[in-house]
Amino acid sequence: MAAAGPIPILKIGSTLLATIQIELVDTVVDAFQGDVLEGIETHGASGLIVDISALETVDSYVARMLANTAKMAKLMGTQTVIVGMRPAVAATLVRMGYFMDGINTALSLEEGLDLLGEARTPEAE
Amino acid sequence: MAAAGPIPILKIGSTLLATIQIELVDTVVDAFQGDVLEGIETHGASGLIVDISALETVDSYVARMLANTAKMAKLMGTQTVIVGMRPAVAATLVRMGYFMDGINTALSLEEGLDLLGEARTPEAE
Repeated sequence: MAAAGPIPILKIGSTLLATIQIELVDTVVDAFQGDVLEGIETHGASGLIVDISALETVDSYVARMLANTAKMAKLMGTQTVIVGMRPAVAATLVRMGYFMDGINTALSLEEGLDLLGEARTPEAE
Repeated sequence: MAAAGPIPILKIGSTLLATIQIELVDTVVDAFQGDVLEGIETHGASGLIVDISALETVDSYVARMLANTAKMAKLMGTQTVIVGMRPAVAATLVRMGYFMDGINTALSLEEGLDLLGEARTPEAE
């Protein structure tokens, strides 16, 4: 259960940005979920962006984790946007019958921030 | 099964604030629901905030009570926001398949008040 390099979580205004840059093995996935939720609590983040543009593949376990993390964040009062999904990943998820209902998505980080209203309310922190 | 201390219900403007500070046993849960609904009627509250930040765990009974209380308040014309859900609680609820659909949530009391529009209409009472 070694942490195979944590996923960096940055803060932009009142939004947390998690950029997944490594292929996700199960232990990293579980740690990621906990880290993100604790980050939300610690920073009082009103938005969460998960950038998956580096991922060439997303299996059903990871897809479910992403969807569940978004639901957990929602219960805590935080909106989640998944950004940068590659065409092949989107195609695979839909073919698996996994539509990520109720999950916000955006093409890019910029549009994700825009969706969360972060761009319109620049905060000095 | 003695009443283990009632849950305090405060009034902020036209919003009722219930802060759950004790672990909830079933009798307290049932009394709480009645107290909150009566409080809404008595004070003509347009909003209800339930602060659960002190709860380390929420079982399915309590989760259902919270969701049902919100639905009952809704029928009476009052919006409910559940604030301060801890990461572990959110994780457990989602893993149980309990998403609290249609329930408003916010990170903090402040954001909950903001969501209810209370912050924008300070009332002297």
